[in-house]
Amino acid sequence: MRNPAPNIETFIGCDADYADAKIVLFGAPFDSTTSFRPGARFGPAAMRHESFGLETYSPYQDRDLTDFTVADRGDLELCFGDSSMALDDISAETAAILADGKLPLLMGGEHLVTLGAVRSVLAVHPDLHIIQFDAHADLRDDYLGARLSHACVMRRCYDLMGDGRIHQFCIRSGEREEFRFAKAHTDMHPFSFEGLKETVEAIGDAPIYLTIDLDCLDSGIFPGTGTPEAGGVSFNDLLQAIRTVCAGRVVAADVNELAPMLDASGASTATACKVVRELILSLC
Amino acid sequence: MRNPAPNIETFIGCDADYADAKIVLFGAPFDSTTSFRPGARFGPAAMRHESFGLETYSPYQDRDLTDFTVADRGDLELCFGDSSMALDDISAETAAILADGKLPLLMGGEHLVTLGAVRSVLAVHPDLHIIQFDAHADLRDDYLGARLSHACVMRRCYDLMGDGRIHQFCIRSGEREEFRFAKAHTDMHPFSFEGLKETVEAIGDAPIYLTIDLDCLDSGIFPGTGTPEAGGVSFNDLLQAIRTVCAGRVVAADVNELAPMLDASGASTATACKVVRELILSLC
Amino acid sequence: MRNPAPNIETFIGCDADYADAKIVLFGAPFDSTTSFRPGARFGPAAMRHESFGLETYSPYQDRDLTDFTVADRGDLELCFGDSSMALDDISAETAAILADGKLPLLMGGEHLVTLGAVRSVLAVHPDLHIIQFDAHADLRDDYLGARLSHACVMRRCYDLMGDGRIHQFCIRSGEREEFRFAKAHTDMHPFSFEGLKETVEAIGDAPIYLTIDLDCLDSGIFPGTGTPEAGGVSFNDLLQAIRTVCAGRVVAADVNELAPMLDASGASTATACKVVRELILSLC
Amino acid sequence: MRNPAPNIETFIGCDADYADAKIVLFGAPFDSTTSFRPGARFGPAAMRHESFGLETYSPYQDRDLTDFTVADRGDLELCFGDSSMALDDISAETAAILADGKLPLLMGGEHLVTLGAVRSVLAVHPDLHIIQFDAHADLRDDYLGARLSHACVMRRCYDLMGDGRIHQFCIRSGEREEFRFAKAHTDMHPFSFEGLKETVEAIGDAPIYLTIDLDCLDSGIFPGTGTPEAGGVSFNDLLQAIRTVCAGRVVAADVNELAPMLDASGASTATACKVVRELILSLC
Amino acid sequence: MRNPAPNIETFIGCDADYADAKIVLFGAPFDSTTSFRPGARFGPAAMRHESFGLETYSPYQDRDLTDFTVADRGDLELCFGDSSMALDDISAETAAILADGKLPLLMGGEHLVTLGAVRSVLAVHPDLHIIQFDAHADLRDDYLGARLSHACVMRRCYDLMGDGRIHQFCIRSGEREEFRFAKAHTDMHPFSFEGLKETVEAIGDAPIYLTIDLDCLDSGIFPGTGTPEAGGVSFNDLLQAIRTVCAGRVVAADVNELAPMLDASGASTATACKVVRELILSLC
Amino acid sequence: MRNPAPNIETFIGCDADYADAKIVLFGAPFDSTTSFRPGARFGPAAMRHESFGLETYSPYQDRDLTDFTVADRGDLELCFGDSSMALDDISAETAAILADGKLPLLMGGEHLVTLGAVRSVLAVHPDLHIIQFDAHADLRDDYLGARLSHACVMRRCYDLMGDGRIHQFCIRSGEREEFRFAKAHTDMHPFSFEGLKETVEAIGDAPIYLTIDLDCLDSGIFPGTGTPEAGGVSFNDLLQAIRTVCAGRVVAADVNELAPMLDASGASTATACKVVRELILSLC
Repeated sequence: MRNPAPNIETFIGCDADYADAKIVLFGAPFDSTTSFRPGARFGPAAMRHESFGLETYSPYQDRDLTDFTVADRGDLELCFGDSSMALDDISAETAAILADGKLPLLMGGEHLVTLGAVRSVLAVHPDLHIIQFDAHADLRDDYLGARLSHACVMRRCYDLMGDGRIHQFCIRSGEREEFRFAKAHTDMHPFSFEGLKETVEAIGDAPIYLTIDLDCLDSGIFPGTGTPEAGGVSFNDLLQAIRTVCAGRVVAADVNELAPMLDASGASTATACKVVRELILSLC
Repeated sequence: MRNPAPNIETFIGCDADYADAKIVLFGAPFDSTTSFRPGARFGPAAMRHESFGLETYSPYQDRDLTDFTVADRGDLELCFGDSSMALDDISAETAAILADGKLPLLMGGEHLVTLGAVRSVLAVHPDLHIIQFDAHADLRDDYLGARLSHACVMRRCYDLMGDGRIHQFCIRSGEREEFRFAKAHTDMHPFSFEGLKETVEAIGDAPIYLTIDLDCLDSGIFPGTGTPEAGGVSFNDLLQAIRTVCAGRVVAADVNELAPMLDASGASTATACKVVRELILSLC
Repeated sequence: MRNPAPNIETFIGCDADYADAKIVLFGAPFDSTTSFRPGARFGPAAMRHESFGLETYSPYQDRDLTDFTVADRGDLELCFGDSSMALDDISAETAAILADGKLPLLMGGEHLVTLGAVRSVLAVHPDLHIIQFDAHADLRDDYLGARLSHACVMRRCYDLMGDGRIHQFCIRSGEREEFRFAKAHTDMHPFSFEGLKETVEAIGDAPIYLTIDLDCLDSGIFPGTGTPEAGGVSFNDLLQAIRTVCAGRVVAADVNELAPMLDASGASTATACKVVRELILSLC
Repeated sequence: MRNPAPNIETFIGCDADYADAKIVLFGAPFDSTTSFRPGARFGPAAMRHESFGLETYSPYQDRDLTDFTVADRGDLELCFGDSSMALDDISAETAAILADGKLPLLMGGEHLVTLGAVRSVLAVHPDLHIIQFDAHADLRDDYLGARLSHACVMRRCYDLMGDGRIHQFCIRSGEREEFRFAKAHTDMHPFSFEGLKETVEAIGDAPIYLTIDLDCLDSGIFPGTGTPEAGGVSFNDLLQAIRTVCAGRVVAADVNELAPMLDASGASTATACKVVRELILSLC
Repeated sequence: MRNPAPNIETFIGCDADYADAKIVLFGAPFDSTTSFRPGARFGPAAMRHESFGLETYSPYQDRDLTDFTVADRGDLELCFGDSSMALDDISAETAAILADGKLPLLMGGEHLVTLGAVRSVLAVHPDLHIIQFDAHADLRDDYLGARLSHACVMRRCYDLMGDGRIHQFCIRSGEREEFRFAKAHTDMHPFSFEGLKETVEAIGDAPIYLTIDLDCLDSGIFPGTGTPEAGGVSFNDLLQAIRTVCAGRVVAADVNELAPMLDASGASTATACKVVRELILSLC
Repeated sequence: MRNPAPNIETFIGCDADYADAKIVLFGAPFDSTTSFRPGARFGPAAMRHESFGLETYSPYQDRDLTDFTVADRGDLELCFGDSSMALDDISAETAAILADGKLPLLMGGEHLVTLGAVRSVLAVHPDLHIIQFDAHADLRDDYLGARLSHACVMRRCYDLMGDGRIHQFCIRSGEREEFRFAKAHTDMHPFSFEGLKETVEAIGDAPIYLTIDLDCLDSGIFPGTGTPEAGGVSFNDLLQAIRTVCAGRVVAADVNELAPMLDASGASTATACKVVRELILSLC
C-alpha cells in the first residue's frame, strides 16, 4: 500500500496530531551568537532524522512513546544574523503552544534559544523556577559587546526573574565574575547533580522550566557540541537527574547545543536523541 | 503565521500534489549489494535535504522549478539484505506512477535500483531504449555469485531487452569480458559523450530511459560515491548531455550512486542536487 | 635479510600455522542487513591492520600472545545482498575449524554473522549456552520483513535452542515486545553485567558460545559502531566480564559490530583490538 | 639564537611593519548571516596558518612576496549575532588603512564583509567600480527578512553605487528575480570570465574594488565553502582573471568564503592561500 | 582602538613578558619517531589556538591565569627527520629558561621531547625525580633499531638517572620485557594513580619533573592521540593527580601526545587545554 | 573450498611469484622528513588495500594486469626518525631486484624515498636520466638544516648525476632559488607536460628512471597529499604522459606522496591505484 504522506518527518514516535498532543516538540535551528564553533543550528534536524536509530520503548522507564500523544511541529524558520528577531519567533511559538494547554519542548540550537521560550513561559507562570543542567554558567552580562549571546542567556533570564529562582547544576566553566554572581544571586551546584533532589523538593508545587545544555555531559560521551568540557556527568547520571526533576511540576523544557557535524561518528546525536526520548517519557 | 505542515520535506520546488504532477520523484535508499564502500542508501535523503542550498531557478536553462508541477513521493521503505524483494517494491512504485500517466524519476541508491524501474517501464514501453551515463560498464553476468548486483545491472537489463538497445557513455572501467560483451551486444561509447547527439537522433521517437550513475563525473568533482573514477566528464559536459538526451522522448529516468557520507565537504551532494534540478527542468 | 612473505597480514601475534593452532580467528566482512549505518564489513580488516598499534603482552593478565599458538585465517569472501548464502559460508568455516579440534573465534561484521557460527557449534555441542554482551536485545521476529537480520539474530538462535539457554547482559535497547519475549524465554540482565558470575557458575560444565557485540560498551568509549548507545559498560567492566565467562567452558566466540569508518579517530578500532587480545588470552 | 617574538603569525611573507607597508591584509572572521553551512569565520586564521605550506615565490609571475612590503594586521574581533556592528568595525579598519595611503586587502569571512569595506572605499573613491568573481549573484533585496545578509551584499552595494558600476563574473546561481535585476542594473557575465578584459579596459583609470568569492571556482577544486557550486572556473582561469583586473587601478580587494573545516583535506585552504599570494603579487 | 600587535597568539592568559614570568610555556612540534599515527607535531599550535574556548578561571582551584605571570614563548622550529638535532634544540631552550630562574613547561609533540627537557633539568637538579603519567611504559631499549624513539624515552631517562627515580602511573601497555625492566628498575604503578600521594610524600623536598602523556586518559575522553588506550583514567582523576604532584617541588613539566587532527570533534584538544590550565594553576 | 593463504595482500593482479616476475612492486612507508602534513607513510598500504576497487583491465590500453607477471613484495619495515638508515634499506631492496634482472616499482612514502632507489639504479645504469612529474621543484640544498629531506630530493639526485639529466615537468612551486638552479642545471618544464615527447625522443636509448609525485595532479582531483597544489594537470594528461615516457627505456620507477588519511573520500587513493595500474601496463 502506498504511504499517503511519505515525506513527513518527526522525532520517532511523536507523530500525534497537534490538536491531540499533550507535549509539543519544536526546533529552533539558530546559532548566530555562537562565538567559537557553530553548528548547533543543525541539531534539531539531526535529532529528528537520527531518532530512527532509536527505539520508541525505554527499558529504563518501561514506557513507550507510542503510548502517549506527542506532536512534533518541525523547525521554526529563523533569521540568521538578528538574534532579537529570532528570539521573538521562539517566544511566539512557545506562547501559542502554552495557550493551547500543551507542554512545549524546544530543541535547540544554541543555548540563547532558551531565553525566547522562558519569556513566554514566565508570562503564564510568573512563579517559575528554572533548573539548568550545563557545563557553563552562562551568566555574563555581555559577550564581546552583545547582551543577547549564548554566554549571557542565564543572566538575561535572571534579569527577568531575580534572585534564587535559577538552579544551576554540573557547572564547571565560567569567568570568575560569573561564579561570584552565582554566589550572590543564583543557586549554583558546581560539577555534579549534588543537591538536585533537595532542590526539587524545595520548589514543591511551583512550575519548573528544565533547560538541558547537553554539554553538561562529559566530553567523552558528548563531543558533538560547540564547547565540549571534560569532567562532566555520565549519561546514567543525567537520566536519573531528568527523572528527579520530572517528579516536580515541569511546565516547559528544552534540550540544546547538539552540533552534529562536530561528532562525525554520530554518537553525540544518538545520545541527544536518547535524552529527548527519556525526557518526554519522564514528562508524560 | 504558523506553518500547517512544517515537517514535510521534498526536493526543493517539487511540492506539487501527486494528482497534479507531471513528474514524480521517489527515492530508493538501497545499497545492499554494494561490495566496496556502502552509503548510497543515504543518497535520496541527502539530496532532498541539501537541495535547500540550491535555487529553484536555473540560469543555464532560464527555467524555474516553481513553474512546473513536480511531486516528491519520498523514500520507499526497502528490505536490506534481500535484493529481490527490494527490486519488486521499486517496480511496483514505478508501475503505479506510469499507470497514472506521470514520468517517474528515481533517486538511488546503488545502481541496481535501475533494474526495478526498467522492468516496469518496459512493460509499458516494449520498444524502450536505455541511455546510460556511467564510469562502469555494469555488464558482469554475476558478481561473487550474485546475479542481482550493482555490477550486473546493465547485463540484467540486456537480458530483458536484447541487442543494440542499451547505449553506454563515459564508460572507463570494467573487466575485459564486459568490454567484449559490449562490443557484441551494446552500443558503448567509452570515456566521453562522443556520439551522443547521433545516438539520440537515431533513436528518434522511440521511448528512452535515462540512467545517470553520477560516477560518470570525474572523481575530482564527484568523490562522494562508492567507486570514484578519475578521468571522467565535467559537470558542464554532463549538463549538456542531459539536455541532448531530453531532446528525445524520455519516459523515465534515474540518478544514482551518491554516497553522501563519503564526501564530508558536501560538494558531491550539492552537485547531485544540481544534476537532479537540471534533469527535471530538461524533462519539463 | 629479506622477509620471505612480507604481504601476509594477521592479527598481531596470531601467526601460527593453522595445523598447530588451538584457536583460529577468521573474519566475516558482512553487513548487508544493517538497516541504519553500514560499515561493519570493514571491521575485521581494520582490527587486523590496526592490531599492530597494540602490544602482544597483556599487563592485565600477565600473558603474551606469542606464548600461544593462534592462527588467523583471514576474511571469508561473502556475497553481499544474499544473507542466506553468506551465513552458509560462515557455518561451513566454523564447522571445519571445529572438526579440526580447534576453537573458532569469529570477527564480524554485523551481529547476524553469529547465527552462521552458532548453527555449526550447536551441531557439535547440542547442550550449548549462549552468553551475549550487547546493547540491543536482537530478539525481533522479523525486521522490515526480513527474518535474517542483525535485529533478529538472537531470536533465530532461540528458534534453534529454546528457553533458558540464551543469557543476555548489558541490554539497554529494544522494542517493548522484545523485552516481553526475553522475560518469557531468555535470561536477560539489562544495563550491566550484574549476575554474570552466578550465570557462569550455574552453566557449570556445559559448553558456552560467547558473543560480544561491541556496542555493549558505552558510546563514549565505542562510537565506531552502527547504533551506538549511551549508558553502556566501561572497558574495564567488559574485560572483567570476559575473564568471568572464560572461567567456564567456552567452545567458540565472536566479536562484532565494529564499523571503523564511523570513528575516524581510530579509538574504537584500537579498543576492539584490545578486546580481541584479552579474549584470546582469556581463552588460552 | 632565540626568536624574540615567536608567537607572531602573519600570512607568509607579509611581515612588514605597518608603517612601511603598501598593502595591508586584515581578517574579518564573521559568518553570522550564513544561512546554510557556517564556517567562513575560520577562513582568515586558516589562510594565515596554512600559508606556511606555500612558497613566497610565484613561478607564474616570477615575483616574490619578500620583495615587497606587505603587512598583516591580524583579525578584527567582531561581534557575532549583530551584523550591523560587525560591518561598522570592518568599515573603520578599512578607512584607517586608506587614510594611511595603503591598499586594504580583506580576508573574509562570509561575503557580507565586503559591504563594510566598500562603504569606506566609496567615501574616498566616489567613482568606484566593483568587479565581483562569484558563483552567486548576491542581489536579493532581503533574505528571510534580513537585508544585511551574504545573499544581499551586492544589492546593498548597488544601493550605494547605482547602475552599471557592478561587474559580475562567473555567476551561475541565484533566484530568477536576481537575474532580472542584473539585466536591468548590473553588468553581469554569467558562467565564466568572458568579457573581463573588455570590462577592465572600459573602466580605464577609474578605481576598482575587486571582490573574490572563492566559490567562483569549480566545486571540484574548491569544496571548502558554504555553498559549493559545480560548473565553475579553474584555478588557472582565476589566476589569469586576477592579473587582468590588476592591469586596471585596483584600490582595495577582498578574498572571502573559505570555510576550512568543510574541506578536511586542506586542499581548499591551500588554494585560497595561493589565490591570496597571486593577488598580492599582481597588486604590487 | 586598534590593537597594536593583533597577530601575537599565546595560550590563553599566558601573555606575560618573558622577563616577568615565573612559568614559561614553549612548544616542541615534533613527531618524527612516531611509528604508528603521526600528528602530535600539531599539538602545541592546536592547544594555543583552541585555548580561547577555555576560560582563564578554574572553578576547581578558584584561581585565574590572569592572577599570575606566565609567558608563552611559542614553538621551537625543529628539524624533521633528525631526532638528535631536535632534542638538542629542546635541551637548549629548557636550559635557557632554567638559567633565567623560571619554570619551563613544555608542550609536545611526541613523548620523545621529554628527553630533551630532562637532560637540561638534570644538569641543574642532579637529584631529580620523574613522575610519569602514561598509558605506555616507554621503556624499550630500542625500537626498530632506533634508540631515540618515543617508545624508548623513559629508558633513555633511566640511562641518565638510574634506579628508583622514575615513578610511573596509569601504565597499561608495553612489552613483557618493559614490565620486567620496570619491576627491577623503576617505581611502576600500573593502571591508575594508586600510590601517588605516598610517592610524592616519599620524594619530599627533592625536585620533580612531571611528564604527562595525555594518553593516560581513557581513550573515550581522549581519542586524539597516536595510540589511544582503553581502560584509562578519567579527567577528574587526572586533575586530582596533578594537584597531588604539585604539592611537591615540581621544577619542570611537560604535556604531550595530543594529535589534534585525529579527533576532528575538537574534544581532545579542549581537554588538553584544560589539563594545561589546571597544571599551570597548580604550579603557581 | 578454503583459500590456502587468505591473508596475503598484494596490489590487485600483482600476485606473481617473485621468481617469475618481470616487474616487482614494493612499498616504502616513510614520511619522517615531511615538514607540513605527514601521512604518506600510509600510502603503499592504502594503494594495495584499495586496489580491489579497481579492475585489472585497462580500457585505455586494452591490456590486463593478469596477462603479465608482476610481483608485490609488500612494505619495507623502515626506521622512523633516521632518514639515512631508511634510505639505505630502500637502496638495498632496489639493488636486489635489479640484480635479479627485474624492474623495481617503488610505492612511497614521501618523495625522499626516490633517492634510495636512484642510488641503486645509478650503480647499474650510470647513464641514467630521471624524468620527474611533480608540483614542486624539490631542488633545495637543505631544509631547516636537513639535507636529506623531501624538499631536497632532486638536488641530492643532481649531486649524483650532474647537469642536464634531470627532466622536470608540471613544476609550479618552489623557492626562487630553486627555479634559478633549475635554469642552470636541470631541464625544467613548468606547469605542464609541454616538451615531454621531445625530451623522451632526445633521451633515446638511454635508461630512464620515472618518478611520479602525485601532487603533479591538480589538487581538485588529488587532495590527498601533504602539499596539494592548485593548477595541476588532469588525470588524462598524466595518463598520456606516462605512456609517452614508457615509449622510452624505463628501468625503474616510483609513485609517491599519496597521504590517504588526508582525503577521507578515498578518491585520491583510487586515483593513485589507477596511476599505478596504468604505469605497470605501460611498462609491460
